Amino acid sequence: MALIVQKFGGSSVANAERLQNVARIVTAEADKGNNVIVVVSAQGDTTDELIEKAREISPDASARDMDFLLNTGEQISAALLSMLINKMGYRATPLTGWQAGFLTDSNHGRARIRRLNTERLENEIGKNNIVIVTGFQGINRYDDITTLGRGGSDTSAVAIAASLHADKCQIFTDVDGIYTADPRVVPGANKLNSISYDEMLELASLGAQVLHNRSVEMAKKYNVRLEVLSSLENKPGTIVKEVSKMEKMLIKGVAKDDNIARISLVGVRDEPGFAFKVFSLLASLKINVDIILQSIGRDGTKDITFTVAADDVKAAVNALNDAQESIGFAKLAWDDNVSKVSVVGAGMESNPGVAAKMFEALSEANINIHMISTSEIKISVLIDKDLAKNAVNAIHEAFEA
Amino acid sequence: MALIVQKFGGSSVANAERLQNVARIVTAEADKGNNVIVVVSAQGDTTDELIEKAREISPDASARDMDFLLNTGEQISAALLSMLINKMGYRATPLTGWQAGFLTDSNHGRARIRRLNTERLENEIGKNNIVIVTGFQGINRYDDITTLGRGGSDTSAVAIAASLHADKCQIFTDVDGIYTADPRVVPGANKLNSISYDEMLELASLGAQVLHNRSVEMAKKYNVRLEVLSSLENKPGTIVKEVSKMEKMLIKGVAKDDNIARISLVGVRDEPGFAFKVFSLLASLKINVDIILQSIGRDGTKDITFTVAADDVKAAVNALNDAQESIGFAKLAWDDNVSKVSVVGAGMESNPGVAAKMFEALSEANINIHMISTSEIKISVLIDKDLAKNAVNAIHEAFEA
Repeated sequence: MALIVQKFGGSSVANAERLQNVARIVTAEADKGNNVIVVVSAQGDTTDELIEKAREISPDASARDMDFLLNTGEQISAALLSMLINKMGYRATPLTGWQAGFLTDSNHGRARIRRLNTERLENEIGKNNIVIVTGFQGINRYDDITTLGRGGSDTSAVAIAASLHADKCQIFTDVDGIYTADPRVVPGANKLNSISYDEMLELASLGAQVLHNRSVEMAKKYNVRLEVLSSLENKPGTIVKEVSKMEKMLIKGVAKDDNIARISLVGVRDEPGFAFKVFSLLASLKINVDIILQSIGRDGTKDITFTVAADDVKAAVNALNDAQESIGFAKLAWDDNVSKVSVVGAGMESNPGVAAKMFEALSEANINIHMISTSEIKISVLIDKDLAKNAVNAIHEAFEA
Repeated sequence: MALIVQKFGGSSVANAERLQNVARIVTAEADKGNNVIVVVSAQGDTTDELIEKAREISPDASARDMDFLLNTGEQISAALLSMLINKMGYRATPLTGWQAGFLTDSNHGRARIRRLNTERLENEIGKNNIVIVTGFQGINRYDDITTLGRGGSDTSAVAIAASLHADKCQIFTDVDGIYTADPRVVPGANKLNSISYDEMLELASLGAQVLHNRSVEMAKKYNVRLEVLSSLENKPGTIVKEVSKMEKMLIKGVAKDDNIARISLVGVRDEPGFAFKVFSLLASLKINVDIILQSIGRDGTKDITFTVAADDVKAAVNALNDAQESIGFAKLAWDDNVSKVSVVGAGMESNPGVAAKMFEALSEANINIHMISTSEIKISVLIDKDLAKNAVNAIHEAFEA
């Protein structure tokens, strides 16, 4: 008897018909004699509707009040799915985040999981019940309701799979796996049968939008076997697992991230400690910085440019302007009309031709590169947003050829 | 500094405008320097919409799954009200049933409060926060979510007021107090300034539909000063409290209850233990029996007729039919086309003229009486449902004259 964790996103549970489909997938697994823990998101547009309701009341409601509100979305999905599975003659139990044992920090709206108290989950599994857990949520140590932020339901599912040593964690979505590029952008993109955690991590954090990087990081850390597959088509998806370094394929995919903005600090005094001041300030606001580019000093000053998520740019700009004096820079400029395009693939570091090939493709497509960043398994460039689609296609074609 | 509990029903929190109004009432109390705990119901038709959603999925979902679902309704109201009050510059904290400490039995859909753990509530009050509690809900000892059933939010409010020795418990609704009869049925009905717990209890359990009997019972037991008033008009309502027996007014009100059905067991063997079998069976199903009428035995058999809530009649009839052999009766008949009309007032027992006057009024209106039941402070009759409105008016007129 295996233990399977299955996560279904908002579009997979959007209405009664879709829920029927989910119930079929879940009970088929139970019919094999397996224990199943299901993690669900809120139905379709429920979260957006709740946010709209809140905006009507108060445009800047506290993150704590928002968490208290948004929490209800997954609870409705879980209740409905439980009713359906119970009606089919199986035994299902719906559990909220706190009932399932999710203890988080107090970062409302983007909480991190501190601990998963698995007592209740183990208890239900011990009774052979199909457990339906509301994704995306937990409570902090004051018993206040928190939400995990973007990609939270994936993270909930992986946390359960990791804590209970599940045999696999299936992420059902509206695409049938991980592709070499976004199939909506690149028509010729190919589906991958498998991908390593590190490659997936780069793709996820680069905006592949299938799996959130937090869930992949956690899956890697606890060696959880992930599978990304479609809830609508009954066929194998893409397995995310630790793979051998002897992989033949060099490039695993081309990704595009539009949720990005560039901030430049101009005329910084060329003294030690500057970078520390800037990035510790942003870290204290939980703002992640991605690519960092520093100009060579001249006339005792230098410039520094970096990228943050577009969602965070206002908070970052405000905080930096407030601290202009203590940090010491002449001018701040920012721009969110940019995209990041990346190629990802293990073994890239030992093949200098990859970067050259990418830059060649962009050059031939007449696309200007603003920033470049490389890691062992990826190369990213920052370009104008309106050229990003062209760039992805040009790069994909160059590597497929 | 006083502690005030204020409960707002579904129509009082139905939309953003109504919520604004509630926020004004709540903060006006806080401006007086008082601590306020607010109990809210689900917005307007939210509960009905959720029930509809569930029916679409499964017409007979378990009460436990329904509780898990319905629970979200009050949570949405509480979140929105908290946002509004916080926006106005006050400090509000929304709490779910379990966060507020409501521990109930496991009777899903109609749970009873076992204990209220006031630690969190006291903590918030200690910080001078305005606390907004979701009414109608709690958790059982397995940490499963329960709901308190009809009138549950009133009961939640009274339980908080009782446990924290609040100075008063205000029940805001869409009428401005308790009337001598339903003003929608009897145009000349008068508003009462005050009423005793016992009188209110009879009126509530007889279908006056303003306060649920469970909340009044609890208020009486713990001597909670209740006030029923309108959330839309700024004027005094009706106070429910322990009053002197020397009241002058004999009749406090005329009430009508349409949620009633009559069950008759015909040809029962005239042996001891019969009533016990019938009513313990119904009690085990948590079905309350109201009026009971037993015919005088003849030919070794007798008939017994009693009333239950119309909601319960199907369950009662099924259970009784299943047990026909062990209980021992020839035939079961039932009818939910009936209403109960009652007059209520302290001191009635010492005035035999009340019953006579009521029966005279009904006779003059040509209304046939099926069953009669009396207590120290009320007289109830069961009549055809289509005549109930006429009956209430006829009786009200007779006593007002």
